[in-house]
Amino acid sequence: MPPIVGVIGGGQLARMMVPPAVELGIELHVLAESAGESASIATTQLGDYRDLDEVLRFAEGVDVVTFDHEHVPQDVLRGLVARGVAVHPGPDALLFAQDKLLMRARLSELGLPVPEWAAVGSVAELDAFIAEHGGSAVVKTPRGGYDGKGVRVVENGTEVADWFEAGEQLLAEELVDFRRELSQVLARRPSGEVALWPVVESIQRGGVCVEVIAPAPGTSARLTEMTEAIATTIAAELGVTGVLAVELFETTDDRILVNELAMRPHNSGHWSIDGSATSQFEQHLRAVLDLPLGPTGTREPWSVMVNVLGGTTEDRYPAALADQPAVKYHFYGKEPRPGRKVGHVTAGGQELEDVVFRARAAAAFFEQ
Amino acid sequence: MPPIVGVIGGGQLARMMVPPAVELGIELHVLAESAGESASIATTQLGDYRDLDEVLRFAEGVDVVTFDHEHVPQDVLRGLVARGVAVHPGPDALLFAQDKLLMRARLSELGLPVPEWAAVGSVAELDAFIAEHGGSAVVKTPRGGYDGKGVRVVENGTEVADWFEAGEQLLAEELVDFRRELSQVLARRPSGEVALWPVVESIQRGGVCVEVIAPAPGTSARLTEMTEAIATTIAAELGVTGVLAVELFETTDDRILVNELAMRPHNSGHWSIDGSATSQFEQHLRAVLDLPLGPTGTREPWSVMVNVLGGTTEDRYPAALADQPAVKYHFYGKEPRPGRKVGHVTAGGQELEDVVFRARAAAAFFEQ
Repeated sequence: MPPIVGVIGGGQLARMMVPPAVELGIELHVLAESAGESASIATTQLGDYRDLDEVLRFAEGVDVVTFDHEHVPQDVLRGLVARGVAVHPGPDALLFAQDKLLMRARLSELGLPVPEWAAVGSVAELDAFIAEHGGSAVVKTPRGGYDGKGVRVVENGTEVADWFEAGEQLLAEELVDFRRELSQVLARRPSGEVALWPVVESIQRGGVCVEVIAPAPGTSARLTEMTEAIATTIAAELGVTGVLAVELFETTDDRILVNELAMRPHNSGHWSIDGSATSQFEQHLRAVLDLPLGPTGTREPWSVMVNVLGGTTEDRYPAALADQPAVKYHFYGKEPRPGRKVGHVTAGGQELEDVVFRARAAAAFFEQ
Repeated sequence: MPPIVGVIGGGQLARMMVPPAVELGIELHVLAESAGESASIATTQLGDYRDLDEVLRFAEGVDVVTFDHEHVPQDVLRGLVARGVAVHPGPDALLFAQDKLLMRARLSELGLPVPEWAAVGSVAELDAFIAEHGGSAVVKTPRGGYDGKGVRVVENGTEVADWFEAGEQLLAEELVDFRRELSQVLARRPSGEVALWPVVESIQRGGVCVEVIAPAPGTSARLTEMTEAIATTIAAELGVTGVLAVELFETTDDRILVNELAMRPHNSGHWSIDGSATSQFEQHLRAVLDLPLGPTGTREPWSVMVNVLGGTTEDRYPAALADQPAVKYHFYGKEPRPGRKVGHVTAGGQELEDVVFRARAAAAFFEQ
């Protein structure tokens, strides 16, 4: 009997697990919230991931439960574990991907480099933090933020008065003066084996990743050592299983600081589908099944991934493929909406400038 | 709306179309004979591909119909075309993949190199052919043979008396003294564009492909020119659309003769999933949708594919992946049975000997 992996969430990350599952002969079960989501081809149940009974029913007969997103509540996760279901990543690890205050506290405790931060419970506390940090701060809601949502750069505590009214503690961070953003992606098995892809550069616009260059250009051995050590420490100390993405700032004064964590395949690893010997989606399946991991080397000197945001309902494939036949196209079966990630493209080759050009040219065909 | 490709047949070839369809955002509909076949994840209808009404119902709403196998009867194919359904490859081309006598006659007419052959209708006619061809002949039933079935090497016409009793004309061919078997795979769009993969060497055992080396070792420019010219001529003259595999003999006196044709992705092209810039399954989808084709270069100097025949019900993945983590594993979701193709593995690298070793070692883990 082939192993069965259950994925909670039917978005594009679950969808992108389908090709390696089909290839490896792994059966994929997906719990989606509604019909017609990105991973509909593998959807075996529609239901609410916040409902333990529903999730327990989904977990029957699967060998391991994993995730398309990090929003499954801790009580549901712990309910699964209590009934003997293998859950990877487990609740103790996921906690730190779900709550940014807990994450900051834990990383600080581990002595890992993070921006200066504080938990603030009022406009006055935030104003004090701002005064101590050069007149500005990045304020984040500890839970539920993504793609720039739940993040504000402020100069005055009143700018997040609405968030304080909701009664939450907020995370205040120094506004880091960074040269660029990096991402170190790895996979870790329950039995401890770790495999790291090369650190990549991630280019954001409005809080949304728009482009990834793999490997990050001009990366010194020292920088690579640092990003690998940071990510490996986080994975081991937090007990992360499956794919972990550690988003990093490279500061103008050459420090590396941890920005965010994601405990699942991540946008900054999409290039690996076409550009690495083992894609992050295949590796995630191998890791959560506690199977030996694959090699993570690059297939070509440079890979560049460009997200397709917004998209179009018109069929642009004939023109795009005629112009850029060698680019790899990935679409998620989503209705186009302004700013929505509906797909991505990846180009590879010897000359970075040429690869960037081709990836951007291919993606541009699908913009509205 | 994404394009919809309808595939008749739910076997491993339909299954292996799933990953590129998911990646490209193409919707796949599969008409399978029964539940639980290899392509069950994409199966949208169960039914009989010999029943025109059933197939017409399946074809509703798909942009193009294509195939997992070549057994759809001509009247069903022509019924689809008559109702305006796009069918690739079309009935006029498929005829020559369905009937070996028609194929031999057509290739001879085109002046393409084939073994000496004759249509024989009786033991006496076959004995005459045998007498003229050194005392032996390869006899084939014109229809329905595959993987060595429907093929006998005989020295006496009575050895196929049972086939003559069925009333059929048979195909008699000279027993070719060949050095090795080659396969030239290409894809062709309805609008005429053709893309060829490198010619490969195919190693058979008992009429079944067991191993493929891509590209074929020690291939001269002259040989490559010949195999490409032969396959391109066949594709254009027979009006083949989608993937075409031309199986060839390289004779001991350096001639190239056409053995068999397959008008669909073919076992000798499986290496391209991991070893080429564009896999035969992605290319087939692009071709039947008349989209520009992708590049067919190799990702590594050598790729070696080894079929997993028979297989095991035990989980050998932990051991196989630990021993050969870089090999790419493909399983088809089939119940193991002696001699049955249940999967394949592909290794790639710089040194042929090493690549062959790793591919065979990986496959061996799954043998019973």
